[in-house]
Amino acid sequence: MPRVGIVMGSDSDLKVMSKAAGMLEKLGIDYEMTIISAHREPDVFFEWAKAAEGKGIKVIIAGAGMAAHLPGMCAALFPMPVVGVPMSGKNLAGEDALFSIVQMPPGIPVATVAIDGGMNAAILAAKILATSDAELLEKLKAYSVEMKETVQGKAEKLNEIGYEAYLAQK
Amino acid sequence: MPRVGIVMGSDSDLKVMSKAAGMLEKLGIDYEMTIISAHREPDVFFEWAKAAEGKGIKVIIAGAGMAAHLPGMCAALFPMPVVGVPMSGKNLAGEDALFSIVQMPPGIPVATVAIDGGMNAAILAAKILATSDAELLEKLKAYSVEMKETVQGKAEKLNEIGYEAYLAQK
Amino acid sequence: MPRVGIVMGSDSDLKVMSKAAGMLEKLGIDYEMTIISAHREPDVFFEWAKAAEGKGIKVIIAGAGMAAHLPGMCAALFPMPVVGVPMSGKNLAGEDALFSIVQMPPGIPVATVAIDGGMNAAILAAKILATSDAELLEKLKAYSVEMKETVQGKAEKLNEIGYEAYLAQK
Amino acid sequence: MPRVGIVMGSDSDLKVMSKAAGMLEKLGIDYEMTIISAHREPDVFFEWAKAAEGKGIKVIIAGAGMAAHLPGMCAALFPMPVVGVPMSGKNLAGEDALFSIVQMPPGIPVATVAIDGGMNAAILAAKILATSDAELLEKLKAYSVEMKETVQGKAEKLNEIGYEAYLAQK
Amino acid sequence: MPRVGIVMGSDSDLKVMSKAAGMLEKLGIDYEMTIISAHREPDVFFEWAKAAEGKGIKVIIAGAGMAAHLPGMCAALFPMPVVGVPMSGKNLAGEDALFSIVQMPPGIPVATVAIDGGMNAAILAAKILATSDAELLEKLKAYSVEMKETVQGKAEKLNEIGYEAYLAQK
Amino acid sequence: MPRVGIVMGSDSDLKVMSKAAGMLEKLGIDYEMTIISAHREPDVFFEWAKAAEGKGIKVIIAGAGMAAHLPGMCAALFPMPVVGVPMSGKNLAGEDALFSIVQMPPGIPVATVAIDGGMNAAILAAKILATSDAELLEKLKAYSVEMKETVQGKAEKLNEIGYEAYLAQK
Amino acid sequence: MPRVGIVMGSDSDLKVMSKAAGMLEKLGIDYEMTIISAHREPDVFFEWAKAAEGKGIKVIIAGAGMAAHLPGMCAALFPMPVVGVPMSGKNLAGEDALFSIVQMPPGIPVATVAIDGGMNAAILAAKILATSDAELLEKLKAYSVEMKETVQGKAEKLNEIGYEAYLAQK
Amino acid sequence: MPRVGIVMGSDSDLKVMSKAAGMLEKLGIDYEMTIISAHREPDVFFEWAKAAEGKGIKVIIAGAGMAAHLPGMCAALFPMPVVGVPMSGKNLAGEDALFSIVQMPPGIPVATVAIDGGMNAAILAAKILATSDAELLEKLKAYSVEMKETVQGKAEKLNEIGYEAYLAQK
Repeated sequence: MPRVGIVMGSDSDLKVMSKAAGMLEKLGIDYEMTIISAHREPDVFFEWAKAAEGKGIKVIIAGAGMAAHLPGMCAALFPMPVVGVPMSGKNLAGEDALFSIVQMPPGIPVATVAIDGGMNAAILAAKILATSDAELLEKLKAYSVEMKETVQGKAEKLNEIGYEAYLAQK
Repeated sequence: MPRVGIVMGSDSDLKVMSKAAGMLEKLGIDYEMTIISAHREPDVFFEWAKAAEGKGIKVIIAGAGMAAHLPGMCAALFPMPVVGVPMSGKNLAGEDALFSIVQMPPGIPVATVAIDGGMNAAILAAKILATSDAELLEKLKAYSVEMKETVQGKAEKLNEIGYEAYLAQK
Repeated sequence: MPRVGIVMGSDSDLKVMSKAAGMLEKLGIDYEMTIISAHREPDVFFEWAKAAEGKGIKVIIAGAGMAAHLPGMCAALFPMPVVGVPMSGKNLAGEDALFSIVQMPPGIPVATVAIDGGMNAAILAAKILATSDAELLEKLKAYSVEMKETVQGKAEKLNEIGYEAYLAQK
Repeated sequence: MPRVGIVMGSDSDLKVMSKAAGMLEKLGIDYEMTIISAHREPDVFFEWAKAAEGKGIKVIIAGAGMAAHLPGMCAALFPMPVVGVPMSGKNLAGEDALFSIVQMPPGIPVATVAIDGGMNAAILAAKILATSDAELLEKLKAYSVEMKETVQGKAEKLNEIGYEAYLAQK
Repeated sequence: MPRVGIVMGSDSDLKVMSKAAGMLEKLGIDYEMTIISAHREPDVFFEWAKAAEGKGIKVIIAGAGMAAHLPGMCAALFPMPVVGVPMSGKNLAGEDALFSIVQMPPGIPVATVAIDGGMNAAILAAKILATSDAELLEKLKAYSVEMKETVQGKAEKLNEIGYEAYLAQK
Repeated sequence: MPRVGIVMGSDSDLKVMSKAAGMLEKLGIDYEMTIISAHREPDVFFEWAKAAEGKGIKVIIAGAGMAAHLPGMCAALFPMPVVGVPMSGKNLAGEDALFSIVQMPPGIPVATVAIDGGMNAAILAAKILATSDAELLEKLKAYSVEMKETVQGKAEKLNEIGYEAYLAQK
Repeated sequence: MPRVGIVMGSDSDLKVMSKAAGMLEKLGIDYEMTIISAHREPDVFFEWAKAAEGKGIKVIIAGAGMAAHLPGMCAALFPMPVVGVPMSGKNLAGEDALFSIVQMPPGIPVATVAIDGGMNAAILAAKILATSDAELLEKLKAYSVEMKETVQGKAEKLNEIGYEAYLAQK
Repeated sequence: MPRVGIVMGSDSDLKVMSKAAGMLEKLGIDYEMTIISAHREPDVFFEWAKAAEGKGIKVIIAGAGMAAHLPGMCAALFPMPVVGVPMSGKNLAGEDALFSIVQMPPGIPVATVAIDGGMNAAILAAKILATSDAELLEKLKAYSVEMKETVQGKAEKLNEIGYEAYLAQK
């Protein structure tokens, strides 16, 4: 039974949203993922968003670009957290999707992450589930240690070979 | 039978949207006006947007601020033109509502007017109706003459009394 | 007899504006299309904008970039709707054309669509004409169904082959 | 035992953050609230953020303005969700705090809400807790009904008395 | 015979544009000043802009706000320099008028000054005329000396009475 | 004897500024062109700016990027018009140079043109000189006719071959 | 003998810059403070900036608004650190001064602080001097403790009286 | 013994930060350079920042992108100057890192340089050390002369070969 529902407005969002899927897999969290346009198929969208709770979904991750309404409309219909991922586009430097997702009116929050932040959306969803899942919380702590060790490995390498060699290898 | 439906997301938008109503009245266009939140009552919103065509509405004027989803969601449900009015707010200089309304994805346009442009929304709705209403087209032409004469009156006054007196009278 | 006039300030706008032309053709709407610079040939522009009504044009679609005056000046001269298409440029992330088109003063609205939104401009023009053309309204509804089915097809494909295969095929 | 920790960088944030506190009270959620500056007392901050989990806190709500580091640093130290509230300031239209909170690097998300969105931060925290608290989920659903009825009441009033009387009463 | 024509799109611009008039008077430059809306009375505008050269006008100062087309349309019709003054408005922090005036396409420059920079527009017009008017050039040099002495007077006062007294007197 | 001085802060500006030079040549206006950094060689800059009037220069065209101080400092030292050309850079979408050049304080205007607007800077300089040079004014009018004919030629071609062939030829 | 020179472009900057002066006094650092306009009196400015080193000045604090050239021109002439304070203005939300000060080209840095950050400019100047002044370093550490205690005092008060009483007292 | 500590949040910042290292080497200033993430390894970061003073470090140069907290958190822990380098990223045109670094609250300044300004960060650090190191001050003055001669060389070359040849050689 999926605990997270990933939804995106267009398959052009899939590259970013696949990072969310990949991270959920890494953390062992069941999810479902689909493409639904709140603008092009509002009835389908309504059905999906209202059915999510019944399917056992606890968190929705919604990604959209431009006038990004999908996350906010999910938040209007789903009673648990919606994580919004603003997609960058060709114009406006990403501000259109960011403002359309984060500036929700009183009563209907969307938990917004960075522009193109698909991976962080999955980690936030995991942190939300970890508020009542001790095993998942341990996995997240282990992931933190992993991140720390990755940075430390880079620092050691830089210290050993110097910045010129480091840059040449990249 | 209303030809225009005015809808706004909150009664804080009423001051701007009442200018749309006033202009429609001046041009003799029947309208209905209501407050519906796409976020706080999505079912009510869906009903209203889907019923609009059946009521004879030809143009919807939708005003909203912040992450302004109302105009775009109207455009997803109503097959004729939706005019969007971005409301300015306390932060982001009005860019949040403007970008959330104008940057609609391919297939679902919103006819966006200036920030806080309630009166212009009504004039645009009238221009839309005037594509098949010769009498209304004449009223719009008369209004153009009226605007021209207003500016000319101001120019004459400035010429007569000079800028210091003009500024003192304002 | 053309019902829509497409005008652009420069042939560098043609790639975006040709999407408007293509969509009008798909919907069976007669149009004329030309290049006129309000800045470089104001007399030609004036003639064209004033003659449009007499040629049967009901909607003008005007595209321009940078300090994009063409849509607004059309709206000053043509009594029915003008749809404005802001063109992105090398600098300012598209904000220059967007603000120059959408921020029209009271009395002279331009129906602004998304930056580089040529196709949406045509759909908006069609929606405007559909307020008095039941056949065109049916075509627009059919197009909505087509859009819905396209998204559903993508969702089914994603469900069947998974995101990795989907991304690999793109 | 508090389930939510509210922290702010300065007492100038208290007006916004008190709305978070008030909403948590309304929903019957225990919380603690304090003022800690990550910049002015980093040791105190470190202690507090590291001790939060042991105190039973499941969600941190962190508000800050300008170069708003408090939410992100909380997210670096606390393994469960951090909700970030960007505070508007005198300059930059609120973009400084928004960008400083939402644009977190991969691995360390902050669940960002609207600028000055104190109340929404509390609702988001409640939605997070509601993923494992059926009673709280019912309260949130009841609150949704309450919001809906409030809007409907305003719509009815507008319908009854008209926009001029409505505006006069405000 | 006026050497400078001052034109503004609305009498709401008069406060800023009167500073241009005042500075021209101070420098002894004949000017005419009027209100003409390129949007609301395009024919009147065309007449005025085309007639300017014949009246002896060498420089036009044009002020406008929002989607500020007036300076650019003057530049399309008048063969000598047009100085553009962007007016700040309620929204977008003045960027709309600035971008609409300064971002002119190749071939049709507008000499843009700071937002609300009415006085500077007059000084720029004077500098333009001073390229062939030695007497005016001397007046401008004298004005530079005057500005210098004003600043020096303030510096002396600050030095004498200290910053606390200085601030108290303001 | 040069009537225009072209100065740029770095040879990375030369591509844009060479368009100014080319247009001055086309219009038959003598100019000198050099590279001077107000930041890296303030003494050299001071000398140059103060000597310009004595060399017969009537207009300075100054181009600079980032924190673009060169045009404004020219305007502080040279008593006739300075035309400023903001250079786009890698970051901030060109706003840094634009704001640094156009937002000059009262008393010291810079005639700012579009970002990367080298050609327009030359045309503006020519328009300034044309206020007292009837022959140059005729050349500018001829150039206007040339621009008009170029656009008309494109419009005719589009009309003849259609947009698909036109796009294919580009 | 002054170790810090405070300079501002206009007496409208004095309110912000007086906070720099007050903080230097608190830390026991001798300074001189004056008003000099790089634009209105470039010769005076040049003299002052070149003489600063000889007077014993080790750090210049320069504040300016709009197209803020003063800090950057100081950095071109003075070989030790220049701290730049962007002043907010009526338009552009403070971005004009910030970009004009911080975006200095390679070779000529300005140490930029927050918009209107007069006090922080003084603290940064003190930190610079403290790199070779152990006594001053101790004072800065003591100031850090003082800041910490101030925040802790507020946190205690909030804890004692609750947020409603706290807000009521402000 | 290092006098400057260079720290960056990720090895993606190394290309920019290596320019800081190169310039310090050119000026003969000992430094250490490492990669530490304030978000991914806050304990390591705390240790490093607190130990810096004891190692003889007088200035920290900290580079970071997006929600760039590293420079500000260094400034909270290190009592001498911190120079912040905002890194540009894919979105928001570099504003996110710039605002996150420069907009520090009262009491905790960061000396911010231009976006991607690695080399300038090193020069600023050198200028800071030069306040008490006469030999280094001489090196900086020599570097200023070198910069001046480089620009003069370019100006001479442009003068000799003309702009077309100059552009062709680049």
